Amino acid sequence: MKRIGLLTSGGDCQALNAAMRGVVKGLSENVDELEVYGFHNGYKGLIYGDYRLLTSRDFSGILTKGGTILGSSRQPFKLMRVPDENGLDKVEAMKQTYHKLNLNCLVILGGNGTQKTANLLREEGLNIIHLPKTIDNDIYGTDVTFGFQSAINIATDAIDCIHTTAASHNRVFIVEVMGHKVGWLTLYAGIAGGADIILLPEIPYDIKKVVEAIEKRSKAGKGFTILAVAEGAISKEDAKLSKKEYKNKVAERKFPSVSYEIADQIQKAGGTEVRVTVPGHTQRGGSPCPYDRVLCTRLGAAAAKAIMDEDYGCMIAMVNGETKRVPLKDVAGKLKMVEPDCQMIKEAKRIGISFGD
Amino acid sequence: MKRIGLLTSGGDCQALNAAMRGVVKGLSENVDELEVYGFHNGYKGLIYGDYRLLTSRDFSGILTKGGTILGSSRQPFKLMRVPDENGLDKVEAMKQTYHKLNLNCLVILGGNGTQKTANLLREEGLNIIHLPKTIDNDIYGTDVTFGFQSAINIATDAIDCIHTTAASHNRVFIVEVMGHKVGWLTLYAGIAGGADIILLPEIPYDIKKVVEAIEKRSKAGKGFTILAVAEGAISKEDAKLSKKEYKNKVAERKFPSVSYEIADQIQKAGGTEVRVTVPGHTQRGGSPCPYDRVLCTRLGAAAAKAIMDEDYGCMIAMVNGETKRVPLKDVAGKLKMVEPDCQMIKEAKRIGISFGD
Amino acid sequence: MKRIGLLTSGGDCQALNAAMRGVVKGLSENVDELEVYGFHNGYKGLIYGDYRLLTSRDFSGILTKGGTILGSSRQPFKLMRVPDENGLDKVEAMKQTYHKLNLNCLVILGGNGTQKTANLLREEGLNIIHLPKTIDNDIYGTDVTFGFQSAINIATDAIDCIHTTAASHNRVFIVEVMGHKVGWLTLYAGIAGGADIILLPEIPYDIKKVVEAIEKRSKAGKGFTILAVAEGAISKEDAKLSKKEYKNKVAERKFPSVSYEIADQIQKAGGTEVRVTVPGHTQRGGSPCPYDRVLCTRLGAAAAKAIMDEDYGCMIAMVNGETKRVPLKDVAGKLKMVEPDCQMIKEAKRIGISFGD
Amino acid sequence: MKRIGLLTSGGDCQALNAAMRGVVKGLSENVDELEVYGFHNGYKGLIYGDYRLLTSRDFSGILTKGGTILGSSRQPFKLMRVPDENGLDKVEAMKQTYHKLNLNCLVILGGNGTQKTANLLREEGLNIIHLPKTIDNDIYGTDVTFGFQSAINIATDAIDCIHTTAASHNRVFIVEVMGHKVGWLTLYAGIAGGADIILLPEIPYDIKKVVEAIEKRSKAGKGFTILAVAEGAISKEDAKLSKKEYKNKVAERKFPSVSYEIADQIQKAGGTEVRVTVPGHTQRGGSPCPYDRVLCTRLGAAAAKAIMDEDYGCMIAMVNGETKRVPLKDVAGKLKMVEPDCQMIKEAKRIGISFGD
Repeated sequence: MKRIGLLTSGGDCQALNAAMRGVVKGLSENVDELEVYGFHNGYKGLIYGDYRLLTSRDFSGILTKGGTILGSSRQPFKLMRVPDENGLDKVEAMKQTYHKLNLNCLVILGGNGTQKTANLLREEGLNIIHLPKTIDNDIYGTDVTFGFQSAINIATDAIDCIHTTAASHNRVFIVEVMGHKVGWLTLYAGIAGGADIILLPEIPYDIKKVVEAIEKRSKAGKGFTILAVAEGAISKEDAKLSKKEYKNKVAERKFPSVSYEIADQIQKAGGTEVRVTVPGHTQRGGSPCPYDRVLCTRLGAAAAKAIMDEDYGCMIAMVNGETKRVPLKDVAGKLKMVEPDCQMIKEAKRIGISFGD
Repeated sequence: MKRIGLLTSGGDCQALNAAMRGVVKGLSENVDELEVYGFHNGYKGLIYGDYRLLTSRDFSGILTKGGTILGSSRQPFKLMRVPDENGLDKVEAMKQTYHKLNLNCLVILGGNGTQKTANLLREEGLNIIHLPKTIDNDIYGTDVTFGFQSAINIATDAIDCIHTTAASHNRVFIVEVMGHKVGWLTLYAGIAGGADIILLPEIPYDIKKVVEAIEKRSKAGKGFTILAVAEGAISKEDAKLSKKEYKNKVAERKFPSVSYEIADQIQKAGGTEVRVTVPGHTQRGGSPCPYDRVLCTRLGAAAAKAIMDEDYGCMIAMVNGETKRVPLKDVAGKLKMVEPDCQMIKEAKRIGISFGD
Repeated sequence: MKRIGLLTSGGDCQALNAAMRGVVKGLSENVDELEVYGFHNGYKGLIYGDYRLLTSRDFSGILTKGGTILGSSRQPFKLMRVPDENGLDKVEAMKQTYHKLNLNCLVILGGNGTQKTANLLREEGLNIIHLPKTIDNDIYGTDVTFGFQSAINIATDAIDCIHTTAASHNRVFIVEVMGHKVGWLTLYAGIAGGADIILLPEIPYDIKKVVEAIEKRSKAGKGFTILAVAEGAISKEDAKLSKKEYKNKVAERKFPSVSYEIADQIQKAGGTEVRVTVPGHTQRGGSPCPYDRVLCTRLGAAAAKAIMDEDYGCMIAMVNGETKRVPLKDVAGKLKMVEPDCQMIKEAKRIGISFGD
Repeated sequence: MKRIGLLTSGGDCQALNAAMRGVVKGLSENVDELEVYGFHNGYKGLIYGDYRLLTSRDFSGILTKGGTILGSSRQPFKLMRVPDENGLDKVEAMKQTYHKLNLNCLVILGGNGTQKTANLLREEGLNIIHLPKTIDNDIYGTDVTFGFQSAINIATDAIDCIHTTAASHNRVFIVEVMGHKVGWLTLYAGIAGGADIILLPEIPYDIKKVVEAIEKRSKAGKGFTILAVAEGAISKEDAKLSKKEYKNKVAERKFPSVSYEIADQIQKAGGTEVRVTVPGHTQRGGSPCPYDRVLCTRLGAAAAKAIMDEDYGCMIAMVNGETKRVPLKDVAGKLKMVEPDCQMIKEAKRIGISFGD
């Protein structure tokens, strides 16, 4: 007999349902009795005891279903120790819910912030298993996170569509790709979409270099240029600012996002008209791609095994093609960023992609 | 022996290549000798004699290719009679190019503006055939234009993706769909995507009604609402302004587009947080859908027949499932808009979709 | 207060759920009280009283869901008057279920066979509304059926994939498209996919003409040829056989389907190696395309209106872009086939497509 | 100054063009002068001196294009040492073409058979770089081959489509997935598509176990079962036969492929009707998925670097997320098969997937 809890926290993404299906199928096929409690809207459901008992029917047909059947919400880690508006201690409340339901384990699906809270709950004595969910691919300790490949596909589709229209009109286009702190999604979608210039948070850009790259293409008779720009792309000057100074600067920016600002800079510097496309939240949505479905099924099945082995306090990671249990204490709080001189960046530069540096 | 010219003008869209392939295949299979001149970048190529002789190889494999192999540009009708910066009379220049090449016919692919210039050239004595291209579906005299269904598919994909993320987070989302003057694309994509509220240029909205519709859903336990908003959506108050007053108001708007303004209005009126997604030019791009490929192949083949019959001065339209030659003089300058009380709007309202009116 | 029944009968297809959602949303928004009974597995559920009461939750999120939430089965019309193995009179049983539930109307989604039984129930005094479902597009009295465009998309995808591989290897490929009696799906997918030869049930083929068309391409330096072949494609000789003779011949055929036989004939006649691909039931599956979702939403909303108007005994059709009530008695038992000399076939031939005739 | 040759050999797949683009872009951006010779139709072009000089224009826009711009053909390794019908020594002919063109390096894209010939040419003193192409993912020494993920996507799409129709009709369906010798594609597509039973060449099946798995689902109230079956799936009895005996048995089989035979066995053993779908060559076709485009761009860029470093005789592999040069002599002739007791199979079994063993 096993009693487990499930919750999905943070920005939603593809394959959350696929991962939960993996966990539950992996247990229900191998455990005599199983009770699964689904907490609604992330940690909120755990804090306020908002949950429902799930049956096998809930997990039927959800392998291909986007979003999360449990709902999600963002609950910042740094506020977890801060009592809520009614004075409720959130951490204590979560522990109470957990113990009240007499859970063997709580399976938490989420990104970096979620992982920090998961680790906190582990420190508080709860049995925790974390599954690495994020379209950003920035979780330390796993080669890949789920949602990432599905998001690449959507962002690449957008660049593909822009390609035909850019080529027809000889225009400069910016496609803004999700990613405030890390550039994995922009890097992969940019290469997959054949972008000419890729701007990442990890590699501050020099607008002159960007304009030069556009002009180099013009001179080579290529009438159009496509830029894949991460939400968190930053200029060399801005990268020198303190975090606070930069935050203020962004707040005062008259443009809704960095891409509009870069478009403005290019137009001023080079005279070229620039169009901006923002696929936005579509990058989190829709049915998970086959890659993510396989990944999640495996992570889920491996989580089920860890629960059967009563081996908790870990994230189930994918490392060199094998699922692996990685202690939460070793990875919580760490971020996996794009190294500016990594092999992949070098390869991209070798085929002529400019990073504006 | 036939000598024809081809040009694609205005904003690009899917299936331009498919349509040109249809014309050229239709002729080359049935005419002893054929010379096809492709003018570059729309009317510009005709004005400045910028063209190339095309061979059957140019038309191989382009059925599925987005964009236009000839390039396109916007050449406003109202400037056609205005000499260019060097004093060149554009209309005369186009006629000269046409006569110099001794063309039997010029096949022009484009939207409403393009059509007006096509009609002008007809009045000037050129043999013209027009093919109705636009993702807006607003060309009078044909049931459907090419590009429309492909654009619906892309806009619907965006709404589908937003659906899963909206449902997971119980959020209000706006998806901004292309269409400044007419709402066909928003209407179709909105219904296909299961949008709850659809705002069209033809049906001015009352922001109170919009907020009411959102609240009605909340009360019914549906935590999220999706709005499909046309670029040209307009409030009841703004609809009362003169064209000039409204233009000025838009120019001063602090938001990059109407959706951001509506999001702001909803937030102010109802307190709900609203997210905006702008698929933008992706709606014009990518491979044409099968529907558009069939449509364009048929229109192209019908254009070929008209050329063989030496029956010029017409648009090739699709009417009740049959291709048909419609005199350009009967349709040029007319716009096909969404009638606010048409059957389709009534049906949409019947299933509970709000148009904010 | 309205009490309605829903059933889906015959081969399943895309957008069945979308259509049912349209009916139920159209009613629930406009009727004070509504009870919806869903019969399981087509007429079987009506015969044996196998049904469930559906709630609005059943219709949430199913706009994009393939298949049918009610299940389906084939119940041949000609057996409807034949008692079942237990001596049960099926027609009487259906009437009893209908009356027992005190239904105002039974909404039946299905193809030609289903329609005949629907008309029979109408003759027996039941209030019937029929919605035209089939990937075959062969229902008389409506311009288009739902499922058709979605199936075109899937079959065209298959031809697109074959195109790249055929071109790489200079091979002759047959893609077998669904359609035993009518060729609409093959015709549309064939044109959309750029097939070189299209074989339809309505246009018997001469294998010599087929081989000639392949050789003509070879001589023109086009190394590959793609044939879109309907399941019911038939040779000129076989078309002369009586129905019974042909049936026997097919039964004895050593090939699993006609495409393998045609491949064999081509190889024998011309020496070319031919590969066969059979997408099969995938053509019925997956999420409905936006075109079908709009179509079904409109048909569903129009059905709701007919029920509110108490105007029964009709099929809801789409005619010239408008939904329309067509008396069942006028259309039941009629088939809409491809006319061999219709405009579309002529256009296809004009661009060089061979129909083997 | 570099002079390189390119050839694509064996069954075509997605991303061949993307890989060649990577090589050529990587060189042309970094080498003073570059001449690229493209050999037509695989080794045939090298043997018979059938090639063309390629320009940068040939590589523009081909990132997303399926198939191969060079054409391909199968030239069995074991026949390479056998003179052709005119007595020509193929190996000598290839060496002559290579030396006549004074190539610095020959880049060969292909699978296992291709690799063996590539290694032979290396032994004969030519500078060779091999890129691992195959939808089968069976090349030893690389974590993944290109074409594999794109093929997974297509096969999974097929299973997805079958899922909705199987569920609607409560039927047993077999989807036959490519792979005669190895089961990677079937394993991944089967898990991604949510197949209930997966039959691989590496895990001989017992038809009784297969039927039991179907019956277990029936008893659990799941009315349908989907089998993903590799082309090379084999029963336990047949696995005991000698290679020759099995070949003879297959040759005499009355079914066009193994799936039809398994369907027949299931029907005989369990009485259930089974439908078969064969996506066939579609699995090799269409546009490469973003995953493969990134993979190929990286492999291509890494090949360019190896050429600049004059480091030949290797395959460019992807190992633990990094591109790597693997000596051809270490890998040629080895096959990477699915280990029946590998982690992934265990995970699949844990969630209830049957492998019929």
